[in-house]
Amino acid sequence: MDIRIELTKNPKVKPTDESKLGFGGVFTDHMFLMNYTEGKGWHDPRIVPYGPIPMDPSCMVFHYAQEIFEGMKAYRTQDDTIQLFRPQENFKRLNNSCERMVIPKLDEDFLLEALKKLVEVEKDWVPHQKDTSLYIRPFIIASDAVLGVHPAKTYIYAVILSPSGPYYKGGLNPVKIYVETKYVRAVRGGMGMVKTGGNYAASLIAQEEASREGYSQVLWLDGVERKYVEEVGAMNVFFVIGDEIVTPALTGSILPGITRKSVVEMLKEWGYNVNERRLSVEELEAAAASGQLKEAFGTGTAAVISPIGELKCNGKVTVINNNEIGPISQKLYDHLTGIQWGRLPDTHGWIVKCC
Amino acid sequence: MDIRIELTKNPKVKPTDESKLGFGGVFTDHMFLMNYTEGKGWHDPRIVPYGPIPMDPSCMVFHYAQEIFEGMKAYRTQDDTIQLFRPQENFKRLNNSCERMVIPKLDEDFLLEALKKLVEVEKDWVPHQKDTSLYIRPFIIASDAVLGVHPAKTYIYAVILSPSGPYYKGGLNPVKIYVETKYVRAVRGGMGMVKTGGNYAASLIAQEEASREGYSQVLWLDGVERKYVEEVGAMNVFFVIGDEIVTPALTGSILPGITRKSVVEMLKEWGYNVNERRLSVEELEAAAASGQLKEAFGTGTAAVISPIGELKCNGKVTVINNNEIGPISQKLYDHLTGIQWGRLPDTHGWIVKCC
Repeated sequence: MDIRIELTKNPKVKPTDESKLGFGGVFTDHMFLMNYTEGKGWHDPRIVPYGPIPMDPSCMVFHYAQEIFEGMKAYRTQDDTIQLFRPQENFKRLNNSCERMVIPKLDEDFLLEALKKLVEVEKDWVPHQKDTSLYIRPFIIASDAVLGVHPAKTYIYAVILSPSGPYYKGGLNPVKIYVETKYVRAVRGGMGMVKTGGNYAASLIAQEEASREGYSQVLWLDGVERKYVEEVGAMNVFFVIGDEIVTPALTGSILPGITRKSVVEMLKEWGYNVNERRLSVEELEAAAASGQLKEAFGTGTAAVISPIGELKCNGKVTVINNNEIGPISQKLYDHLTGIQWGRLPDTHGWIVKCC
Repeated sequence: MDIRIELTKNPKVKPTDESKLGFGGVFTDHMFLMNYTEGKGWHDPRIVPYGPIPMDPSCMVFHYAQEIFEGMKAYRTQDDTIQLFRPQENFKRLNNSCERMVIPKLDEDFLLEALKKLVEVEKDWVPHQKDTSLYIRPFIIASDAVLGVHPAKTYIYAVILSPSGPYYKGGLNPVKIYVETKYVRAVRGGMGMVKTGGNYAASLIAQEEASREGYSQVLWLDGVERKYVEEVGAMNVFFVIGDEIVTPALTGSILPGITRKSVVEMLKEWGYNVNERRLSVEELEAAAASGQLKEAFGTGTAAVISPIGELKCNGKVTVINNNEIGPISQKLYDHLTGIQWGRLPDTHGWIVKCC
């Protein structure tokens, strides 16, 4: 498919002070759009000026949340090239999300080609300062103007771009996590392994209640027994227990993070004893009591590695690694961000050059 | 608050053949809109021509599904008045949904006043033929143009109207139900008791797979033990077992239906032994085997009462009441629809006259 390009006649003023960039609030001049119509397939791929999408009030995404998304970043290297980190993994996961949410699949190679073209058009929007990046948000929404509950027959695929600052303004500091025992994010048989709006909508109240108690994120437990660790906020989670590194196995209710996958691969390469398995809060607390819980960290596209300094569960506070960043968290952060921003060689074939 | 009214200059042609009315595909000339902005509250209530709502591509509802809705109907009586059925219950539930989904609450009295005004403006759109009605869809969507995962600071409340035909074209016929053992709709601690998009998005794949096997809806089981009955498709469910009528208790993962509530109240009034309790598939199958499973039916705004003639669970088919409508289902249907369309006196104070 040919990608039609219509450039804006009114370019925006780019953020002048990159040190003030936040997350997800500023968008570039253009977006990528493509439509799906039953019988016609995905069609009319185009790069057009960023702007509102007129939606019929009855459109399915407003009522039944048939919607999925992805999140990744474009990084500017020191020699001024722009690169992506494992974007094929994002498009593969997008297609897996399509399957669960009954959305027609897309051609992953074409999505990558289209993304590279869009980033090329917007290359001046990729910020320059250390730890800044261009956040990339591909998403699909059901657009049928009908109130019946069934999979839509028309969809919009869109990609929007947002120049973003470092996730942690003050550097890599441990966060305080609240172990959620009242609300549940997802259960096996549900859609927890999919990047779809409903999972995030379900999580808002828990995040609100935790932040009122001074905790920045919640640690979700499984929906069946409510004792096994699943993920933290919108990140996957790892624990260093003795000489083992544990992350919850992908049992169907956990998002299969691309940073998670990369961390597991790197740790194995480095010879660590890393296991994807069930991990109960009880085991965590016992490990903490015996001094074996050495480190904990979240992994995700936004923060890359997010050290955890404190867990609160049923009123009991567990401090991890004296509330300091552990050596494994630091090593992973340095390596991953090193590869992403091109400061370290890409020995895994994870980098895709854009322009 | 004063409601501003802007009438359309281009009224649509109303459906001429009411016998061909479907569900949720035709919309009236006007809609009700109101906005929320943090610090300002809900404001600018207005009735305006029905038309597309321009949404920023980054708006929260596209990505994190912070959205809720309601469903009810306006009925035309034989003496040509137009009336609503327990609309206060819908607005009460809308506010309960707000709480779980971290959306600012609304003034229920004002919502009813606004709805009556909108229906008054659109009164000629309420169809005349037997069993037709004007379907009413109030909904709220998060409209912030920011990608951060947190409750929005701006929202749109909207009400759209759709003239609809009878749910069952061929009259009240029993449906075939597939007992879902693979997918889960909701789990306690989640948002199953709330009318929010994510619950419906999660259900699409199961409905698709069931309909491929010739079943029109699925019967959801609990997400923890996967043995207790929860609801059927987008309806609540009742079973007549011996001289007891059972509907699953509202344990947090089941939608508290207004038709469900009305059915329980009517059955009690009529002296039936109706219980809201846990009910396992095992108990159902045993009751069927011993000849005690006499009737089953779903309840909801769209179908009112939907008799169930067949259940399929793990390959095993259970036929209920010889695949015919049972006397209790029929009596409930006649009474409820009688009250709704004004053919029977409203002894409960359930009816609200519109115009």
